[in-house]
Amino acid sequence: MKQAAEGPPTGAQGTPAEELEARIGALQQVLAGSGLDAALIMQNADLFYFAGTVQQSFLYVPAAGAPTLFARRVPERARRESALPDVRPLSSQRALARAVAEQYGALPRRCGLELDVLPVLQLRKLEDLFPGTSFDDVGGEIVRLRAVKSPYEVERIRAAARLFDAVFAAVPGLLREGMPEHEFAGLVEAEARRLGHEGYIRMRRFNQEMFYGHLLGGSSLEVPTFLDTPMGGQGLSAAAAQGPSRRRIGRDEPVMLDFVAVLEGYMADSTRMLCLGRLPERARRAYRTVLAIDTAVRAAARAGVEAAKLYEIARDVAEGDGYGDSFMGHGPTRVSFVGHGVGLELDELPVLAPRQGPLQAGNVFALEPKIVVPGIGAVGLENTYAVTADGLDRMQEAPLDVLEL
Amino acid sequence: MKQAAEGPPTGAQGTPAEELEARIGALQQVLAGSGLDAALIMQNADLFYFAGTVQQSFLYVPAAGAPTLFARRVPERARRESALPDVRPLSSQRALARAVAEQYGALPRRCGLELDVLPVLQLRKLEDLFPGTSFDDVGGEIVRLRAVKSPYEVERIRAAARLFDAVFAAVPGLLREGMPEHEFAGLVEAEARRLGHEGYIRMRRFNQEMFYGHLLGGSSLEVPTFLDTPMGGQGLSAAAAQGPSRRRIGRDEPVMLDFVAVLEGYMADSTRMLCLGRLPERARRAYRTVLAIDTAVRAAARAGVEAAKLYEIARDVAEGDGYGDSFMGHGPTRVSFVGHGVGLELDELPVLAPRQGPLQAGNVFALEPKIVVPGIGAVGLENTYAVTADGLDRMQEAPLDVLEL
Repeated sequence: MKQAAEGPPTGAQGTPAEELEARIGALQQVLAGSGLDAALIMQNADLFYFAGTVQQSFLYVPAAGAPTLFARRVPERARRESALPDVRPLSSQRALARAVAEQYGALPRRCGLELDVLPVLQLRKLEDLFPGTSFDDVGGEIVRLRAVKSPYEVERIRAAARLFDAVFAAVPGLLREGMPEHEFAGLVEAEARRLGHEGYIRMRRFNQEMFYGHLLGGSSLEVPTFLDTPMGGQGLSAAAAQGPSRRRIGRDEPVMLDFVAVLEGYMADSTRMLCLGRLPERARRAYRTVLAIDTAVRAAARAGVEAAKLYEIARDVAEGDGYGDSFMGHGPTRVSFVGHGVGLELDELPVLAPRQGPLQAGNVFALEPKIVVPGIGAVGLENTYAVTADGLDRMQEAPLDVLEL
Repeated sequence: MKQAAEGPPTGAQGTPAEELEARIGALQQVLAGSGLDAALIMQNADLFYFAGTVQQSFLYVPAAGAPTLFARRVPERARRESALPDVRPLSSQRALARAVAEQYGALPRRCGLELDVLPVLQLRKLEDLFPGTSFDDVGGEIVRLRAVKSPYEVERIRAAARLFDAVFAAVPGLLREGMPEHEFAGLVEAEARRLGHEGYIRMRRFNQEMFYGHLLGGSSLEVPTFLDTPMGGQGLSAAAAQGPSRRRIGRDEPVMLDFVAVLEGYMADSTRMLCLGRLPERARRAYRTVLAIDTAVRAAARAGVEAAKLYEIARDVAEGDGYGDSFMGHGPTRVSFVGHGVGLELDELPVLAPRQGPLQAGNVFALEPKIVVPGIGAVGLENTYAVTADGLDRMQEAPLDVLEL
């Protein structure tokens, strides 16, 4: 195998060793605190988080001591991509238990697994391979650990947000009146790819799917879908059931670009409004409320403030301006959050929703106030913010105003 | 909620009622044969297969009698998209057991679930909700049912293959010397979107991810990755670790367009070779073997022939021409198959690999002979074929020759 000399400059560097050490150290504290002897990490986003690679592997993390990455495919690539000191080839999943026993002297009695994402038959296979081991969920704890980003991670997310800024700056040259949504989406996506967008968007929850985001105009903005999102769109068929449709973009109607940028695995979630011409007055008025919600949440947010409180602030501004029934969707299809964590997956913690606890410094979330304007479509804004002790640090630099073309 | 009048002409028609009836009838035979009282279908691809919608739902299929689609989000949309007669709104997952009991008089004693894809914590939640029910896997049986396509499905896959043909016809206008792989990929993808490509590619197995496919040139074709594919590519970072990289496409080098087209949820998998200039002689020679493999497999394949036999035929042609160590990857990273089923997911049955049983009429698989040419890259061809009693029906019409530009 020959490595392309022209490989990516960023990915070639990879996740620094000290990042992986700190993350694994935090996981080991969780394991010790839960009475688990070890964790076995298998899912791609978690593998990348703890090992810096998504090569087909099992990352074995003992409650104390050094972790081992057992790499099935491709071990040479896992060794090159991961800054972990111990990466060993594994011939098959069947060989895993013996490899663990040889490396650690014994099999774990209690072992953590990502039971929130691991299919049932995968667990049963592991139970066969480790007959004396009892397995417990550690996925929930991993999600909580991952919700607090290091400065390194915040900068990766900022780089993704800057990718969005660059994509957004290209939009005026791409949109033409009468262009179908899916065609406009393709042009925006091509520009994103040219700038290095990695394409695939990881989501953690079962059945969640996303393709770049939702680029929708006019009445498409009033079509809700199966995802827990305020807007969804018709999509190109009942099989896709979200995102751009064949509807043509017209003059003086709202066009929403809800777009997930991905670089080095990290995401920024962004929404901006466009309009060919001038947005109708009812939509302009709703957008002023959207801006006011963003401002009000930013003014209140900092480490220690309850995420539920921020949701209340947002909802109160919307209700105060008469949008109680059209905030974050319409009528019975409204969703009850105004923000969600982002990082290596699009559906991370914290969620800005009722009954959610305090923000922590290092949380990164997308704040996405959106309002349906019946008969016209919808308006919305989305920025990705890092939480600090003092407030919020916005990742995007693209102007917040509606882009009228 | 208002439906866009400009909605997609194809998706608006949706899966015909008689298709859904036949599929559910086949599942009910499996349930009766396994002593299961019912199945509860939850995963998107299976929901679309049996109900014609991916709206957040539980499809309850009793071993005998009429199924019910319990739709959480969005019920109005599920009702519009699904040709099933009984679609009922469900307020939450917690309300499911009562809804089933009301509808069917009792809860099932034994119920099938898609345990090959369902996360462990999802199963535990269902076990709490249905305390008297024991759950068994029915995912494996569903995968086997779905491997036999109806004529309607074969035509959907053919439409996806024709989408590929149209994309491929546009390639000469898109590729320029010195263009980075990811930029070229973006242009090809934009053309696909313009033609109606739905974007998201469903895969069934845990941790499998795919974004359009692999568009790779020269040395990138020698970089294997975590997926069970003969080629993989460097990708844009260790987080993506597959597909196009920043490497620039040069003259006289092989460029492989391995591309998954998706329409109405159905996929066709295709590979064609391009070259700016003239392919080096060693690559041309390997490509003659690739064509010979395709011809030999086609000559032997029909319903009743073992998939393992077809793999042997392919491997024997490769070995006979001196490509024993470079067929379907290089050295230890070779994969041991030459074809895989496609449909609503990219990793379906049948697999053309050792120990695999006879083909059935209605199987649809992608046959992808590929050969690594060390120091140059790789060559390959991929067509999607429907199995008939007489042989194979090719879905793509794009020429098989290397496209030299």
